[in-house]
Amino acid sequence: MANRTTYNYTNYGTLNFNNKTDTLVYALGGLGEIGKNMYCFEHDDEIIIVDAGVKFPDDDLLGIDYVIPDYTHLIKNKDKIKALIITHGHEDHIGGIPFLLLSCPIEKIYAPRFAKALIEKKLSERRRLSKTKIIEIDSDSSVKTKYFTVGFFNTIHSIPDSLGILINTPNGRIVETGDFKFDLTPIGTNADYQKMAYIGAAGVTLLMSDSTNSEVEGFSISEKQVIQSIRDIFKKTKGRLLVSTFASNVDRLSQILKCAYDCGRRVVVFGRSMQNVVEIGLKLKTIDIDEEAFIDPELLGTIPPEKLCIVCTGSQGETLAALSRIANGTHKFVRIIPGDTVVLSSNPVPGNAINVSGIINQLTRCGATVLENTTLASLHTTGHASREEQKLMIQLIKPKYFMPMHGEYKMLKKHAETAMETGIPSENCFVMANGDALVLHEGEVYRANTRIQTDAIYVDGNDISGLSTSVIKDRKILADNGMVAVVVCIDSRSNKILCRPGIVSRGFVFIKESQTLLKEAELLVYEALKQAMKQKVTFGDLKNTIRNTLEPYLYRKTNRNPIVIPVILNHRDAIKRNQGGN
Amino acid sequence: MANRTTYNYTNYGTLNFNNKTDTLVYALGGLGEIGKNMYCFEHDDEIIIVDAGVKFPDDDLLGIDYVIPDYTHLIKNKDKIKALIITHGHEDHIGGIPFLLLSCPIEKIYAPRFAKALIEKKLSERRRLSKTKIIEIDSDSSVKTKYFTVGFFNTIHSIPDSLGILINTPNGRIVETGDFKFDLTPIGTNADYQKMAYIGAAGVTLLMSDSTNSEVEGFSISEKQVIQSIRDIFKKTKGRLLVSTFASNVDRLSQILKCAYDCGRRVVVFGRSMQNVVEIGLKLKTIDIDEEAFIDPELLGTIPPEKLCIVCTGSQGETLAALSRIANGTHKFVRIIPGDTVVLSSNPVPGNAINVSGIINQLTRCGATVLENTTLASLHTTGHASREEQKLMIQLIKPKYFMPMHGEYKMLKKHAETAMETGIPSENCFVMANGDALVLHEGEVYRANTRIQTDAIYVDGNDISGLSTSVIKDRKILADNGMVAVVVCIDSRSNKILCRPGIVSRGFVFIKESQTLLKEAELLVYEALKQAMKQKVTFGDLKNTIRNTLEPYLYRKTNRNPIVIPVILNHRDAIKRNQGGN
Repeated sequence: MANRTTYNYTNYGTLNFNNKTDTLVYALGGLGEIGKNMYCFEHDDEIIIVDAGVKFPDDDLLGIDYVIPDYTHLIKNKDKIKALIITHGHEDHIGGIPFLLLSCPIEKIYAPRFAKALIEKKLSERRRLSKTKIIEIDSDSSVKTKYFTVGFFNTIHSIPDSLGILINTPNGRIVETGDFKFDLTPIGTNADYQKMAYIGAAGVTLLMSDSTNSEVEGFSISEKQVIQSIRDIFKKTKGRLLVSTFASNVDRLSQILKCAYDCGRRVVVFGRSMQNVVEIGLKLKTIDIDEEAFIDPELLGTIPPEKLCIVCTGSQGETLAALSRIANGTHKFVRIIPGDTVVLSSNPVPGNAINVSGIINQLTRCGATVLENTTLASLHTTGHASREEQKLMIQLIKPKYFMPMHGEYKMLKKHAETAMETGIPSENCFVMANGDALVLHEGEVYRANTRIQTDAIYVDGNDISGLSTSVIKDRKILADNGMVAVVVCIDSRSNKILCRPGIVSRGFVFIKESQTLLKEAELLVYEALKQAMKQKVTFGDLKNTIRNTLEPYLYRKTNRNPIVIPVILNHRDAIKRNQGGN
Repeated sequence: MANRTTYNYTNYGTLNFNNKTDTLVYALGGLGEIGKNMYCFEHDDEIIIVDAGVKFPDDDLLGIDYVIPDYTHLIKNKDKIKALIITHGHEDHIGGIPFLLLSCPIEKIYAPRFAKALIEKKLSERRRLSKTKIIEIDSDSSVKTKYFTVGFFNTIHSIPDSLGILINTPNGRIVETGDFKFDLTPIGTNADYQKMAYIGAAGVTLLMSDSTNSEVEGFSISEKQVIQSIRDIFKKTKGRLLVSTFASNVDRLSQILKCAYDCGRRVVVFGRSMQNVVEIGLKLKTIDIDEEAFIDPELLGTIPPEKLCIVCTGSQGETLAALSRIANGTHKFVRIIPGDTVVLSSNPVPGNAINVSGIINQLTRCGATVLENTTLASLHTTGHASREEQKLMIQLIKPKYFMPMHGEYKMLKKHAETAMETGIPSENCFVMANGDALVLHEGEVYRANTRIQTDAIYVDGNDISGLSTSVIKDRKILADNGMVAVVVCIDSRSNKILCRPGIVSRGFVFIKESQTLLKEAELLVYEALKQAMKQKVTFGDLKNTIRNTLEPYLYRKTNRNPIVIPVILNHRDAIKRNQGGN
């Protein structure tokens, strides 16, 4: 029999409602969306932040790399911030850390082991941040500030070392689940059922719980079943095996590597994020496999196909990832050969379906057999609780109030309905938006009247200054219709046109076809400008003349509306400046 | 008992292999893709075309409205074209007709009843084509040319009046299924099982069959089950009902209208394509419902919620469709009110998932309950055969050779494997690409050595001249990084710069932030140009100088790579031209 585990109520703080200050709970990101999770707990002069994620942009945010929360409120209150606590190492929980640290210094960052390693790797890439210290936490840790006592419990998710959080505030206990699922036959660390139940018995005021899969009925498939399906494929497959999965799903990855090793296959890992994770996993012993299982990419050709397993990134069809390059024949070391079997241990997230489909077509065309996750053979399972698991969490924690978090609006709403089904009164369920605040007051919870400033900040490249929506709008027009620039040189003093207008275009019409069109357009603009300049005009007038002449003409001729960009050079300026400068 | 139906073998032509000419079969579109279906049958001086569809572009084809096949081969051989035969009225089978007719005249277009009405509507919008005559066909029709005899059989698909085609050629019989499914408890016209079996008994050389759902196991859900689920919702719902589905799924639409009428609800139809279809359906009696079921949109407010059903387009989350405008509060007649129930009788096709999800979030936020298709309640079924139905088609037609059509490569390949499972030898299964040709020679089929010219032509607006890929590539860069134009005015004779360079940008950085950046860039370019012009240089040299100076500078400063467009104006030209023109 296992050792008896004892918990001490006082570990989680005692509740003394003898204060006159309220505690505030709000999200700067993560509500009404999947991504950029950031939940804040504020009491008097203290703020505790849980998670600091990024969101990956939809296709209509052209050329944007990340979306992060607006940190204004935190910058204004930077002296209050006592801790940033990380629940686990996924990008939607840790990806915003560099941007946050560049905006406001945070002295203490707490993160569980695997997340800590990933954050350190991330920060080491930026010189200014490379010295940031991260404090490792686990389910036995506690973090104390003047007002808050924070404890942790193990959960199961699709990355190792995921924690749920218990926050004792002067106005009541809050549980924030982080991302979680239940898996009754887990592969890695098990969930702390007893501890959750114990916390529930101690009395929880507010539960904030993961809503990603609120719309999925039932209980999610066990990781063990997925590994069994993968093991079956390994046993049956004759030729070369390529397996692609999420880099951060280390338990899965570890099992795949074990399968390969057990079946006498040597392994090569391709893709930077996966190589990082394998390196960290081996160091932390999360991946526990003989190093001789791995071979050097250069030696690929020396191993017979049936003795080889290639593990790589790109299961979401990402254009630059290893699998995509392998499919398209542009990978440095691997080409698909007939007889290859490619296993996609993943589901395409919405928005990636077409890309993934394209890669499967390409791999199939090259002669590979591609195996995907189906209802007949589970090659993937989610990291998030389905409805029955969400109910189990609510039953274990037994909160008085409930706030669904981490999800789009429809998911939050559905999760609230699920909570009501378990018996939480509807007036105790709060479907919130980013920036909305809840007030905790002596064990009671209600909506605050105030809102915290939030917004989505678009990050392009490494620049966190943010791109305005007008830039994105311009890009959209450029993308749909291209652009036409009209350049004209005038002499403002004599009010004369010195140069016939020149026109250049990009992304508009094929250059050959456009020769006549643009020549005619030049003439048209020239005539219009001559007409306009018979009177005294401003630069603004001339620009309008150009736009008003050209836009209807181009639309009539091509049915397209490119951006027309008038550029007026003033010869007077030129001469003046040139006299000085040349 | 039903009347005995008799068929006559000779209706389908007798096979006399006494000719020396081969028959060719090839696709100009539809293989290796979903969309732009166009299959051609060529013998000596005759070509018969089956279907002329468009394809809707993926998001990475920026600003493109349609993709159509390259018609070059048909234009070159336009005197050979004896008939265009349409299997059914979906856009991927009829959408290319206007473009085809503008490229090469086709005298005889045959189409089943519903498709004919849709094509006539489509052509009436273009003056040049509005007089085109369409000949109506049904399962009893036959089309005869010198070499071909074409017969038809009823199939079931997600639009009324869908036909499969039997083509008798001098070298063997070909069956082309069109799009089909089997539904053993159908709503509309039933499939001609007996006729298909009879054709199979007569002996079929080559079967070309719909591959869309090759990867879907089992037998698809019956339309009757879908209607039952929808009827259950109608019975239970108290408030206003909004139902969105595919406009062209007329049988479903008709049943939804009947449900509404039976439950005492008046109906308003929103969305142009759906209004068109309802109008045509009522005229053709495919929709058989009392006209008083419909009410005028203006009278919406006068009907109590429980007596109202709004049927509308937009189930794919299309930005401009009725449902999207209703969700966003921009619809002329309808706002969502709490208590509304929205039924999505559809599945999002890959690529639309994010848009659909966004609309559901928006509708939910406004207080509507949104019901989607799930495994628990079928609110939609496919129009295409799953694997068991594909096998049934092969068993009924019993062909000697098999060519999967209508699908991406992986689907075609899977369909070929399915055919092999039914007993067709693998060497008799042909997975083809657009432009590949099969040869029929006296009842035998093999791959031709030649290829037919094919390509994808991108249509932007109404222009069928086609956009080159370089234009699309430029748009992609403009979309991701914006553009920076550098304008400089020089005097080529004196080799002097007359104007300091001017820089304008769009979609690059927010204008305020860019002031300093661009001023510095102007100076940099100016210095570089002065340096360059110390020697005799060409315009090309100067453009390169600008690009080589600016691109690394901008990348270093912003981490972005906008398109840099140098524009050089020559003062000599200007003066010369101006002397003449001013």
